[in-house]
Amino acid sequence: MAEGALTAELILGTTEDVLRRYGPAKATVVDVARALGVSHGSVYRHFPTKAALREAVARRWLERWHEGLADVAHTDAPAEQRLRDWLSTLFEIKRQKVREDPELFDTFATLMRENLAVVDDHVTGLENDLAKIIADGIESGDFAPRDSKVAARAVFDATNRFHDPIYAADWKAPTIDVAFSAVVSLVVSGLSVPD
Amino acid sequence: MAEGALTAELILGTTEDVLRRYGPAKATVVDVARALGVSHGSVYRHFPTKAALREAVARRWLERWHEGLADVAHTDAPAEQRLRDWLSTLFEIKRQKVREDPELFDTFATLMRENLAVVDDHVTGLENDLAKIIADGIESGDFAPRDSKVAARAVFDATNRFHDPIYAADWKAPTIDVAFSAVVSLVVSGLSVPD
Repeated sequence: MAEGALTAELILGTTEDVLRRYGPAKATVVDVARALGVSHGSVYRHFPTKAALREAVARRWLERWHEGLADVAHTDAPAEQRLRDWLSTLFEIKRQKVREDPELFDTFATLMRENLAVVDDHVTGLENDLAKIIADGIESGDFAPRDSKVAARAVFDATNRFHDPIYAADWKAPTIDVAFSAVVSLVVSGLSVPD
Repeated sequence: MAEGALTAELILGTTEDVLRRYGPAKATVVDVARALGVSHGSVYRHFPTKAALREAVARRWLERWHEGLADVAHTDAPAEQRLRDWLSTLFEIKRQKVREDPELFDTFATLMRENLAVVDDHVTGLENDLAKIIADGIESGDFAPRDSKVAARAVFDATNRFHDPIYAADWKAPTIDVAFSAVVSLVVSGLSVPD
């Protein structure tokens, strides 16, 4: 490949393929360079270290997987419905990914463990979605919390069995939907102003 | 050691020491026998396999660590207070163990991952505690759920960041107490009958 044609985007896409093919323990920058037909120096001109490259893949994966989730936080639906929709959408995204390609999901989970700062940024974004929904619910008189940020963190923590990749093995259990509904009901009831 | 003096209890205690000393990946039945000054055949007479021995250690550990927790579910305190006390006690048990001896806690967590049926039994016991508290709260008119078992499972799931050993690294964060209080408040409010 001509040097000028090599973009960061192309490297990231190829790195995903390489990670999928060799697994996160074995994939190297040399493998990525070879797959692209360039020298590993060319890759390093875009990403100074292997760690930087993997961090960029982690960030790209999170962004791509959660595309559209923020929109669910900003619809015109009442806050309670929006909260239920948002939590279901998040669970469904994760569950679908692990169902579609369990090995890729494991690779994803490994990259997340390696890049905790990336995960923190991502979680902050998710908590902002939740805080927006909760703040709207407070304003409309449906939700009771005084602090939408604290409540958002509590909702995120209380539902982690249904979004933290470490629980992926649980998500195919036949009882998982009942468990999810029970936690969502508990959380919604915990936020709601009594009728 | 004389063959007759070798009890299951003694083997289990020694296995804990051996696991602590060599780590769960390296500890063998031969190490346990050597520490006891008996042949490995003598150990196998009590525990037919290495897996059976480790399962028994896992069970004993869980029982010992959670001694007294069930009592908290059976005091005369009002259900809401009892629920708060029980959740705090469970979190405090786990947190104290990891603080006291992080390596032993890692060994414990490894044994738990190896013995999921033992963990399931243990979790069933914990959920029965919770169901008892919630049922009492329903009877006294303080709690709203129709099904105390389903609600117990939801409370257990919603608080897993504060009892699942996989989150042990989070428990020393300075923000963890605020996070714990926020989830407990959300859960208590979710169960409660409005004033």
